[in-house]
Amino acid sequence: MHPARPTGLPARPPDPRPDLSWWGWGDPALVPALPDQLRTLLAGELAVGGGLARPDAVDLPPPRLERAVFIDVVGSAQVLDEDEARLRHLRGKSTPDLLRLRLGDVSGVPDLVLLPGSHEEVFELLRVCSERQIAVVPFGGGTSVVGGLEPESDPFAGLVAVDVRRMNALLELDERSRLAVLEPGLRGPEAEALLAERGYTLGHFPQSFEYGTLGGFAATRSSGQASAGYGRFDELVLSVRVATPAGTLEAGRAPRSAAGPDLRQLVLGSEGAFGVITSLTVQIRPAPERRVYNGWRLPSFSAGLEVLRRLAQDGPLPAVLRLSDEAETALNLARPGELGSGGSGSLAIVGYEGPVESVELGRAGVGRALEAAGGVPVPGAGEGWAKDRYRAPYLRDALLDAGVLVETLETVAFWSSVPRVYEAVSAALRESLSAQGTPPLVLCHLSHVYPSGASLYFTVACAQSEDPVAQWGAAKAAASDAIHATGASITHHHGVGTDHRQWFELEVGLLGVEVLRAVKSRLDPAGIMNPGVLVPPAGEEEDAGFSA
Amino acid sequence: MHPARPTGLPARPPDPRPDLSWWGWGDPALVPALPDQLRTLLAGELAVGGGLARPDAVDLPPPRLERAVFIDVVGSAQVLDEDEARLRHLRGKSTPDLLRLRLGDVSGVPDLVLLPGSHEEVFELLRVCSERQIAVVPFGGGTSVVGGLEPESDPFAGLVAVDVRRMNALLELDERSRLAVLEPGLRGPEAEALLAERGYTLGHFPQSFEYGTLGGFAATRSSGQASAGYGRFDELVLSVRVATPAGTLEAGRAPRSAAGPDLRQLVLGSEGAFGVITSLTVQIRPAPERRVYNGWRLPSFSAGLEVLRRLAQDGPLPAVLRLSDEAETALNLARPGELGSGGSGSLAIVGYEGPVESVELGRAGVGRALEAAGGVPVPGAGEGWAKDRYRAPYLRDALLDAGVLVETLETVAFWSSVPRVYEAVSAALRESLSAQGTPPLVLCHLSHVYPSGASLYFTVACAQSEDPVAQWGAAKAAASDAIHATGASITHHHGVGTDHRQWFELEVGLLGVEVLRAVKSRLDPAGIMNPGVLVPPAGEEEDAGFSA
Repeated sequence: MHPARPTGLPARPPDPRPDLSWWGWGDPALVPALPDQLRTLLAGELAVGGGLARPDAVDLPPPRLERAVFIDVVGSAQVLDEDEARLRHLRGKSTPDLLRLRLGDVSGVPDLVLLPGSHEEVFELLRVCSERQIAVVPFGGGTSVVGGLEPESDPFAGLVAVDVRRMNALLELDERSRLAVLEPGLRGPEAEALLAERGYTLGHFPQSFEYGTLGGFAATRSSGQASAGYGRFDELVLSVRVATPAGTLEAGRAPRSAAGPDLRQLVLGSEGAFGVITSLTVQIRPAPERRVYNGWRLPSFSAGLEVLRRLAQDGPLPAVLRLSDEAETALNLARPGELGSGGSGSLAIVGYEGPVESVELGRAGVGRALEAAGGVPVPGAGEGWAKDRYRAPYLRDALLDAGVLVETLETVAFWSSVPRVYEAVSAALRESLSAQGTPPLVLCHLSHVYPSGASLYFTVACAQSEDPVAQWGAAKAAASDAIHATGASITHHHGVGTDHRQWFELEVGLLGVEVLRAVKSRLDPAGIMNPGVLVPPAGEEEDAGFSA
Repeated sequence: MHPARPTGLPARPPDPRPDLSWWGWGDPALVPALPDQLRTLLAGELAVGGGLARPDAVDLPPPRLERAVFIDVVGSAQVLDEDEARLRHLRGKSTPDLLRLRLGDVSGVPDLVLLPGSHEEVFELLRVCSERQIAVVPFGGGTSVVGGLEPESDPFAGLVAVDVRRMNALLELDERSRLAVLEPGLRGPEAEALLAERGYTLGHFPQSFEYGTLGGFAATRSSGQASAGYGRFDELVLSVRVATPAGTLEAGRAPRSAAGPDLRQLVLGSEGAFGVITSLTVQIRPAPERRVYNGWRLPSFSAGLEVLRRLAQDGPLPAVLRLSDEAETALNLARPGELGSGGSGSLAIVGYEGPVESVELGRAGVGRALEAAGGVPVPGAGEGWAKDRYRAPYLRDALLDAGVLVETLETVAFWSSVPRVYEAVSAALRESLSAQGTPPLVLCHLSHVYPSGASLYFTVACAQSEDPVAQWGAAKAAASDAIHATGASITHHHGVGTDHRQWFELEVGLLGVEVLRAVKSRLDPAGIMNPGVLVPPAGEEEDAGFSA
């Protein structure tokens, strides 16, 4: 299908790669000390006291599975039963995930970790697991924040994590068509480095960029911070190859096609419930000549929404376009004294990536629009955002240590609903947590824009109660109810996992769920693939029957 | 979900609407007389002699179904069993479809034509048909050219055409989100007129624009001539409501979402095999201030491909971008003497639509790129293309009358494959038809561009043999084999229908077909929806089983 491989392909990133810490986000050395100003704020505004301590070690139950049967498939070195390996594949990185580790809860830990090296090995592993009724959790970066790595393994003989880290090659590069064939285990920076050597970029920079993998980006419909310029990851994927228990599915053959329903779009967002993505063909672009990030202060969040809507609908559309509400602006600009006063206005971050000429043209056009809306430049804010863009999860580790319950959630809605969604979700979070005796800070930014709407990303912080997992569970449910009631989607880029399943079912309806279950039954007849993630277990709903 | 309806909604187009002629394309008065120059060419180059005559009348078998059972659902006036109504719902408008009518072949004519007025009526009709094992062909504009309206009705008690023409309202308009909710029976010009009254456009202008309906555009993944500017129809659809025999499916809730697989993309391209689309939410845009179409002559088709690829990848990207090969250019510019000499060069049509400023900016940028590639303006060619853009099917009627076999086919491929696909398909058509004693003219243009590839649209003309249906069948099979062998997709915008099913199965693979069959089984347990279109009847393949 593609021309001969350029010299030097396949190519792989250098070994070893850094691991995420098992009890928090990435490199422990990067967990910051909390600034005094923030400590004062937390003590004063949120009455934060003590919280759950960082765990030293946890005890795991012995594995329920023998290594032998898998050694035949992938070799002894690729079948891990050590505690550390198992623990590193336990759940994801949501705040409840981290809190549960602080509580010593290791339920659902995989019995074994398997490291296949090829499509054929993945396929064979799935065949063995199907035969033996062993549940499988496909594992990429391990950065899920929606319970996407926590299958229901109870009725099964055991649970294995199939970690695709060894499948990390740049296989092909088609420069004329600007596409690359990549393996799913490549992390964001690894893929970018392999492409940069040849002058290209994917342009996909989500919060989880440093640890997330391409397979995970595809399986969860990840969206990068520069999505306005490069597109969401699901828009970058031209074709996928998937190993399922029932066989190999290859979807996507051309840039666009009218050959029936788009089966790629069944794989994208399937969250490991149908199979394991074993390679991806993705659109690439020349690495940008220039990257510029500017900060602007707009008079208010609502004034900012108007101008961002105009830019999304009539252009020029920069690569990055974000807008913080007044509360988030006050914190971001380190003016916590203005919290609640609205005096800080609303901070916009605007990023331009591409050829010098188009960057300058974009800056001029966007600048005119922002000035017309009363915007003023904020020197240093754009560069500051870019420098710290992957640091927020480290701050969470420090805040958890300090006794703060802090978590994020996100949604997406049509423009006409955005103000209503913003108000309803903020109110639901404030009401739920205040009723629990822990009034929160609720911050929000708009982070991805489209002609028809935009996403909203909320950050919530309050004092940890005695049972912070239940505390957050109640608040998240209230926010999710508000999202559904205002017509927004339960997720713009975090995915469904197990946490969002209840609202996902409301969103796609009983018949929509039944369609997904029919697909799953065909591809995964034994029901071993990430059971309970995305698709509810069979029998949990009634038949949709004949009802208009 | 949306704000209150603006005054004056729902709104409908005026009655009555013109019908397609039953034996050919639209208004018979628009079938042109063939220019003398063309007649000379046909006689000389193609040795065209006599062909099948235009049919006067045909005999239909009596309907196998009683009207009574459906009258309860939609009322007597909406259940048609007259010959003319049935004939107008027989098959589509491919050349084989028209030739078979000239041969008096009316096999597969619907027994009844049903005209439901609402989602609920459609749903009830599907329920009745499911119970009674009556096959259903969902009917929009009737312009399929791939056998999409020719279900296999044999094992069923009868066949009804469910024509959604009465479902033709603009239901809602959300100006802030730039979206409209429209019913599926609206034809292209009707939808544009309703939107234009409010200052908007859909921007979807396929060849079938004058007769095609929105439901059909969605069900077949139609692509308009200005797709580079406005997007394919599948990109314009934000949500769909579908009546299926198993219930109502509503897919799409927000601009973008990570809530699982995208079920919209199962409905788009489903060609009536799962259900009937009963409403669509689509992205709209302000009606353009200016529309300009320019013609350019490039030194060669291959030089043109290079510059179009650059524009698709690096911009500026105009709304319309087409490039004819040397043979099509010679004919389009009425220089048939240059046919085969390549002396005419390669004609590009470039169209700009939007605000005056962006139109002028686009013209300047594209003009520079075309000039740098050796392009020179061709005065009048752009305007001529725009004036005649919906006239080609009428010319076909005249050519068929004159004894010419004329038909089109299309595909899409990655840029690195485009030259190979062009050569292979052209050669397959020439070889097949020459071997049958009727050497053809093969013309081609590139009509839709993407960063990763482009579509190719072929027009073929030769003398009709004694059995022109079989004659074209052999040539089309050879071309389709070439398309598949070179890695291209069997269709960029015509759809699968029954004609392309064999190559569609190769393209998505056995497991892909099985997935679609699983979805169909869930939504249409009785298998009544457009049986044999898109999804092969159950049992025609073996189980995909365990095979990597």
